[in-house]
Amino acid sequence: MASNREIHLVKRPEAEPTQEHLNIVESSIPDLKQGEVLLRTLYVSVDPYMRGRMSDAKSYVASFELNKPIEGGAIGQVEQSQSDRFQPGDIVTGSLPWTEYASVSGQNLRKIDPNLGPVTTSLGILGMPGLTAYFGLMDIGQPKEGETVVVSGAAGAVGSTVVQIAKLHGCHVVGIAGSEEKTSFITETLGADYAINYKQEDVPAALEQACGSGVDVYFDNVGGSISDAVYPLLNKYARIAQCGAIASYNVPNDQGPRMQMHLIKSSALMKGFIVADYQDRFKEGFQHLAQWLQEGKLTYKESVKEGFDQIPHAFFGLFEGENIGKQLVKVAEPK
Amino acid sequence: MASNREIHLVKRPEAEPTQEHLNIVESSIPDLKQGEVLLRTLYVSVDPYMRGRMSDAKSYVASFELNKPIEGGAIGQVEQSQSDRFQPGDIVTGSLPWTEYASVSGQNLRKIDPNLGPVTTSLGILGMPGLTAYFGLMDIGQPKEGETVVVSGAAGAVGSTVVQIAKLHGCHVVGIAGSEEKTSFITETLGADYAINYKQEDVPAALEQACGSGVDVYFDNVGGSISDAVYPLLNKYARIAQCGAIASYNVPNDQGPRMQMHLIKSSALMKGFIVADYQDRFKEGFQHLAQWLQEGKLTYKESVKEGFDQIPHAFFGLFEGENIGKQLVKVAEPK
Repeated sequence: MASNREIHLVKRPEAEPTQEHLNIVESSIPDLKQGEVLLRTLYVSVDPYMRGRMSDAKSYVASFELNKPIEGGAIGQVEQSQSDRFQPGDIVTGSLPWTEYASVSGQNLRKIDPNLGPVTTSLGILGMPGLTAYFGLMDIGQPKEGETVVVSGAAGAVGSTVVQIAKLHGCHVVGIAGSEEKTSFITETLGADYAINYKQEDVPAALEQACGSGVDVYFDNVGGSISDAVYPLLNKYARIAQCGAIASYNVPNDQGPRMQMHLIKSSALMKGFIVADYQDRFKEGFQHLAQWLQEGKLTYKESVKEGFDQIPHAFFGLFEGENIGKQLVKVAEPK
Repeated sequence: MASNREIHLVKRPEAEPTQEHLNIVESSIPDLKQGEVLLRTLYVSVDPYMRGRMSDAKSYVASFELNKPIEGGAIGQVEQSQSDRFQPGDIVTGSLPWTEYASVSGQNLRKIDPNLGPVTTSLGILGMPGLTAYFGLMDIGQPKEGETVVVSGAAGAVGSTVVQIAKLHGCHVVGIAGSEEKTSFITETLGADYAINYKQEDVPAALEQACGSGVDVYFDNVGGSISDAVYPLLNKYARIAQCGAIASYNVPNDQGPRMQMHLIKSSALMKGFIVADYQDRFKEGFQHLAQWLQEGKLTYKESVKEGFDQIPHAFFGLFEGENIGKQLVKVAEPK
């Protein structure tokens, strides 16, 4: 336990993030201060929103600093504790640096309740992605029984949860994703009424077929040409939960058809959000998700890579559409 | 009173509407049926939204039919009445055909109360444009004291009312328009804190200077590159009332920077609307506007062309930015 490794942002990507932007750096185990715990990293979550923090443009979260570790959702096990709140052996989650070992203030950690499900669910359906799906759909989308809900990125961690919650509310649900394996997952496992493979199908034609009564709710993780095809189908008073725009993240000055007219024609609402906007209501979201999960009304899938050095590849893979469900990297076994 | 004239849509414009799309056609005075009144047209309103009805794309209002009169907001005087509700001499408003004389069901007409102001205000500040400004700003924009409100098309019938209502609510108001005469009107007459001439100034730089604390509310009549410059300045939880997009109306497949990321970064809301969405609340809006007008807290301006044959030119002029305030055409004097 004498050596440590960290993954640093060494250059800000203009377009696709690649190997040249991230470096694995050898370091040492940090010392503990009062109130801190020493964590051994077990699982790291890679998420599309992290791409935004690699730029230095003004955004909703601070940019990552150059030559410092990337930070994001992760699970660790307490090795040593100078915090009253945690004991060695505890398994915790929080925003942690991409390092094998980290000393972190106990303030920012939450102990995982192993009775709720496998610990990894705290990074997925019972964590940020699940809450993102819940609040975006329920608060912005406000789905009503019989309405048509379209979900882009429907096989991802957030989208796959949105599809299921929309079905629980009696909606006609159409998922969009980029492979046969994903579209099968969306209809067969998640229970969507229809899935569109945007890499194979003519998306406007497929959407028109799948959404015979138009689109009432659009939960958008993707943006780009997929959204261009959804906008013309919006029904009067449609709601768009703008969660992500992964099609634009790596495209400087991404251009497309202007879309204001679609909102006017349908008196539609479009609302950007991040999960932190709902911090005051996390408990409510968490309770619903945990209950549905225990009742077997929700399911989830994880794509897991193994090994600390796989973190960059897992992250890059998000933009290649590699993952189904939550993309995780397993760094170490719990003791 | 034996002859009549009508303005027909004879060809659907793909881009700018011009003379070739509208024809003045001689006709005869229509006969009256039970429940109808024969109206002599006094004033015709030309409005940017009418451009949409000239296309045959699905929209929130039915397309105009080819070789039939255009229809829109107008004021007429009752010449003959087969309706219990109206007497000869009454001055009324409603959606009327672009004809010198029209027989219209009394159901769709409203008698103008001359005590509230000049009759033409029923097509402007006390009519559809005023209500559009009121509901878009108050219901979607929800301006709070001290917030920054940006208004595009700020010298137009809707925009000029928005500027004033925002000032009444203690906001820092920035208007955007396309001439010196308009920017003077916006600051000096309407009381905006700042006005930007988008034809002369570097809009992104001018906006940054005018909106030192970012943008909380954007009332957008215009879209296009002006909106592109506003989006990066949106504050957390900003609201965009998407009223119009005149920059796109005459541009088939108008392209521009994709804007979803801006909404995500600021958790901003963007809502399209048309005034008819607020039909149930027209009385509320009307009462506020009438009261402010009588208290001298609101003012308005009209641009008036004279003569039935000037209607097409007045309409085309909207897209050249000719008008300040409400663009009207005076067709005849009341008797």
